[in-house]
Amino acid sequence: MKALVSIIMGSTSDLGVMEKAAKFFDEMEIPFEINALSAHRTPEEVEKFAKGAKDRGIKVIIAGAGMAAHLPGVIAAMTPIPVIGVPINASLDGMDALLAIVQMPPGIPVATVGINGALNAGILAAQMIATGDKELMEKTIAYKASLKQKIVKANQDLSEISFKFRVKS
Amino acid sequence: MKALVSIIMGSTSDLGVMEKAAKFFDEMEIPFEINALSAHRTPEEVEKFAKGAKDRGIKVIIAGAGMAAHLPGVIAAMTPIPVIGVPINASLDGMDALLAIVQMPPGIPVATVGINGALNAGILAAQMIATGDKELMEKTIAYKASLKQKIVKANQDLSEISFKFRVKS
Amino acid sequence: MKALVSIIMGSTSDLGVMEKAAKFFDEMEIPFEINALSAHRTPEEVEKFAKGAKDRGIKVIIAGAGMAAHLPGVIAAMTPIPVIGVPINASLDGMDALLAIVQMPPGIPVATVGINGALNAGILAAQMIATGDKELMEKTIAYKASLKQKIVKANQDLSEISFKFRVKS
Amino acid sequence: MKALVSIIMGSTSDLGVMEKAAKFFDEMEIPFEINALSAHRTPEEVEKFAKGAKDRGIKVIIAGAGMAAHLPGVIAAMTPIPVIGVPINASLDGMDALLAIVQMPPGIPVATVGINGALNAGILAAQMIATGDKELMEKTIAYKASLKQKIVKANQDLSEISFKFRVKS
Amino acid sequence: MKALVSIIMGSTSDLGVMEKAAKFFDEMEIPFEINALSAHRTPEEVEKFAKGAKDRGIKVIIAGAGMAAHLPGVIAAMTPIPVIGVPINASLDGMDALLAIVQMPPGIPVATVGINGALNAGILAAQMIATGDKELMEKTIAYKASLKQKIVKANQDLSEISFKFRVKS
Amino acid sequence: MKALVSIIMGSTSDLGVMEKAAKFFDEMEIPFEINALSAHRTPEEVEKFAKGAKDRGIKVIIAGAGMAAHLPGVIAAMTPIPVIGVPINASLDGMDALLAIVQMPPGIPVATVGINGALNAGILAAQMIATGDKELMEKTIAYKASLKQKIVKANQDLSEISFKFRVKS
Amino acid sequence: MKALVSIIMGSTSDLGVMEKAAKFFDEMEIPFEINALSAHRTPEEVEKFAKGAKDRGIKVIIAGAGMAAHLPGVIAAMTPIPVIGVPINASLDGMDALLAIVQMPPGIPVATVGINGALNAGILAAQMIATGDKELMEKTIAYKASLKQKIVKANQDLSEISFKFRVKS
Amino acid sequence: MKALVSIIMGSTSDLGVMEKAAKFFDEMEIPFEINALSAHRTPEEVEKFAKGAKDRGIKVIIAGAGMAAHLPGVIAAMTPIPVIGVPINASLDGMDALLAIVQMPPGIPVATVGINGALNAGILAAQMIATGDKELMEKTIAYKASLKQKIVKANQDLSEISFKFRVKS
Repeated sequence: MKALVSIIMGSTSDLGVMEKAAKFFDEMEIPFEINALSAHRTPEEVEKFAKGAKDRGIKVIIAGAGMAAHLPGVIAAMTPIPVIGVPINASLDGMDALLAIVQMPPGIPVATVGINGALNAGILAAQMIATGDKELMEKTIAYKASLKQKIVKANQDLSEISFKFRVKS
Repeated sequence: MKALVSIIMGSTSDLGVMEKAAKFFDEMEIPFEINALSAHRTPEEVEKFAKGAKDRGIKVIIAGAGMAAHLPGVIAAMTPIPVIGVPINASLDGMDALLAIVQMPPGIPVATVGINGALNAGILAAQMIATGDKELMEKTIAYKASLKQKIVKANQDLSEISFKFRVKS
Repeated sequence: MKALVSIIMGSTSDLGVMEKAAKFFDEMEIPFEINALSAHRTPEEVEKFAKGAKDRGIKVIIAGAGMAAHLPGVIAAMTPIPVIGVPINASLDGMDALLAIVQMPPGIPVATVGINGALNAGILAAQMIATGDKELMEKTIAYKASLKQKIVKANQDLSEISFKFRVKS
Repeated sequence: MKALVSIIMGSTSDLGVMEKAAKFFDEMEIPFEINALSAHRTPEEVEKFAKGAKDRGIKVIIAGAGMAAHLPGVIAAMTPIPVIGVPINASLDGMDALLAIVQMPPGIPVATVGINGALNAGILAAQMIATGDKELMEKTIAYKASLKQKIVKANQDLSEISFKFRVKS
Repeated sequence: MKALVSIIMGSTSDLGVMEKAAKFFDEMEIPFEINALSAHRTPEEVEKFAKGAKDRGIKVIIAGAGMAAHLPGVIAAMTPIPVIGVPINASLDGMDALLAIVQMPPGIPVATVGINGALNAGILAAQMIATGDKELMEKTIAYKASLKQKIVKANQDLSEISFKFRVKS
Repeated sequence: MKALVSIIMGSTSDLGVMEKAAKFFDEMEIPFEINALSAHRTPEEVEKFAKGAKDRGIKVIIAGAGMAAHLPGVIAAMTPIPVIGVPINASLDGMDALLAIVQMPPGIPVATVGINGALNAGILAAQMIATGDKELMEKTIAYKASLKQKIVKANQDLSEISFKFRVKS
Repeated sequence: MKALVSIIMGSTSDLGVMEKAAKFFDEMEIPFEINALSAHRTPEEVEKFAKGAKDRGIKVIIAGAGMAAHLPGVIAAMTPIPVIGVPINASLDGMDALLAIVQMPPGIPVATVGINGALNAGILAAQMIATGDKELMEKTIAYKASLKQKIVKANQDLSEISFKFRVKS
Repeated sequence: MKALVSIIMGSTSDLGVMEKAAKFFDEMEIPFEINALSAHRTPEEVEKFAKGAKDRGIKVIIAGAGMAAHLPGVIAAMTPIPVIGVPINASLDGMDALLAIVQMPPGIPVATVGINGALNAGILAAQMIATGDKELMEKTIAYKASLKQKIVKANQDLSEISFKFRVKS
């Protein structure tokens, strides 16, 4: 089994957020790696990781970081494969991390998801790989359909709350 | 020739920003479509477009919009292929568009780039397709290398400015 | 009994906020519906709902959503009846939801109330319907008068707190 | 002819924005008033205006103001008819006016539209009145349909721009 | 005993903040009133209060309010005596209240203090009255001197914390 | 003639804003000083100025500054007379100056007006002194009345604009 | 033993943040002072402290403050030695303190670190002194190397978490 | 002549801002280097530069960058010498660059100056080196004294503006 996606986080304190992507890959049966590497404290390891990812078969990298979140951009600068950035809320409601990830200069995009949005990062990674993988495309379609079931179910629960002037539609 | 990427904008007033993606595809020889469709004024057309995109062979959609920018998210809700969102600066320095695009709920990611970042959206689309297309991967690598030449050249120009206490390194 | 107002929320986790509107309608004896529908996870249901609302006799729609809150705008795009948007504080103190709801493009207004302001959404809906309904106008006037009593009462409580240099006016 | 809507602005310097609502009413043949009244400089006139509006037959009030924009809320406090607030960008990109209008306390809603969104305020007023006026409902539906034509036309213009790798869809 | 200062709050839920001003006046032996009046729910009472204040001998009004905080500005519009505004943090960290109070249009100033800064509002009121009252000026000077003692004392406590490489200066 | 108010600005580049206060004092015939002193570049002069102001007969100080605007707070720390702070828009739309002036710690208030609000600072200074000066109170009342005339006049101009469906009220 | 660095805080309530710098100096065996001095409540002490620091042998000053944080800038105005500013989160998520410290006017820099970043202030002080002190340079290099070990260790812990589709890299 | 300071900018479009530091060094006769290197487009050159700086005799690095400004932090991660970060206003009034530079994680400080504050970065670099260089300390003290002359001169110009009620102090 060879990993298709690599999840990187700037600090193990981000694990509570980032494991949502890992659990999604478990559910979708997509092999992945997960590691902690810091753009600032282990720059050599980040470089070695980023430059080797494509040749090890990694298709997409998901990088989560908080505060002045440089990790996604720094990795994106050193690999041709797409990098998904997850802003972690570690200060200022996550606004610092969001801007430090999304506002990349021309030439080096980072595909940014919402603050603490690691599940969406996982789904987006699957969608990217599915552009060239029919089987995964089918799984992605099935996953999206399942989301609909959850809200239909939630609406049924809601329909049991009673209000005097409520009309059931 | 069949389009691989579809560029959508909420209003033709966004063309000045969005054509940067179109020019990138011309340069990279990636066939694409470009259209104006409004999530709010032509919802049926948006639905028809989004639901048919995958079967017409589109691999990635790039959607740009300003203000309460719903277009990227609305399209992402109706297709399994990845959607890249470009926040357009039409008010509040583009902060409203950025938040309205990036802060998607769990289940429906939009791969967001920086404010007015249509060139980066184009590059990201190429990177996504290249995960399953070796030839495009080679082109993407070559493109990224060319960026380096530009800054090396810029640094040479800079080296000709003279200051009394400047030391050339 | 036919519903005059329809309350929609993007997720049942918004019920704690949105039920303030429901309770107001119970108090005012205005028949209403309440449902959970997601702009992103059940777009077809949203479309069916929005397009059918007017003909089922709905006069006003109240839609609450958080984060990149598209639900109110998406509904407004598909119905001629007025839509009231309630920004839910699910992240960034609700600022993302506020901007994603209020900053609608020309042509498709959403009548936006304050963050988590579902009670005000209910009152506003009553005021809108009362423009063509004399009986409801009387009720609305009575409700507004009752608000005054509450603050007069509160001021009486306050008048019992004693400070040494306080002068009763 | 009796006015159905009253447009109020805090300062005549807001006319450039607020006249978009007036022109919409001219186009829709909805009789309206337009006046400048300041919550801070002419509070008595504001009070007289707000308290008399309903009995003069006004159905909806549109109030535009910038900076610490109190006018819409102050009027809403003194009338049972719905008040639409238009935040004017006079400082801080209009963010001060937006918050000063939309964040009303429980009991006194202001139906807020986007920054400088006077056209949307006009449309929203028409939608409110149309809840009790079938003829206006028809006009509103026709107006919304006309918006669609504009973007369809814009897309045709866009379809004439040529790119080498563009594919017409 | 006749009140020199009047403390007004928009809601009795603001009492926890506003009583800091009341306690300061008790300490300084400055007679004051304290009441709850809402710009939006009791506009007539506010008007009566504001217009009568000067003739009842009130020298300064302190008004605290949260959210779209109109109370200080509305009072300032109806009295020639200075009004001090206290933004209350009820949402958005108090930023909405701050902007809705401080950004007054030309002609109607509100002397704004920091978010939840009711103690400072009390001190500022004393300073204003002291411009025409020598005895109060002396008290104000004494009060300011007492603040210095507190931080000198705090520094002594700090000097007892021991660190290995600390040098006492 | 002895100055009652002292206007201080952090840099002569702020004169365009601050002279609005000076012109107001000329109009009101209130003697004043106007000087440039920098909290950061001439701290000794600021100290000498602040400590001597009261004994030279100054009743109120108006201090304008931009960016990390320390001048009003630094002066307030060294005098018992009230200090009015004017945030100057020199960067970040003036938000940095506003926060650096208004968010003073407990004990040292600065009476803050809106961004670039020097005219309001002048009016506020007059109101403060008028708490102990009946003649100035009369002038202040007259000035406030004149503001009303301006908007009444503006409304007359507005009444001459013709719209097809306008109704004159 | 003579202190090389002086830590100043605006209030002893900031000690929980500022002691991170003190502990760093203990670990690095760099002699330091630590005191509470308020720019607003004890301006004379601040002046005496700032003007005497260089001659007592202090090489760098670290000043922490919250809200309208003037302390670092006020000290920087009165000494030629570098001043490091630590914005303390006491309100508005620390954004007010950050802007009030970092946005200094031309001529008087404050070396600003992140919100509550007292450890980084300590490291930065060591780096500054190390520009002229070889032994301290060696210690600084060793300290930075130790940071790498922590994240390598954290990554090992992470490697023990098991996911079904995880691939170890 | 060997460079003591190295100025780095992320793009030559930042030269208009960054040359203020260069001119300061010319004026102070401090030898320096100036180059353009991009954290994202030339990561290898940045690494080589950062790792070699100390051994080439560089004492301080000044790095300016806009948007998601990673350059200062990336360099700080690879050198023990102090790094000064200059946020460049290229979007969002420079707020993105400020947060992306100042909010560094524990262990890797960047000494941040104000938005576009390259002159202050130059002065701060001189102050840092002066901690171990007496001659430069003297120059720094002289430079700071010269700033005072400029504002004293500006105040003299201001003293010539005449107002009717101005009193010269």
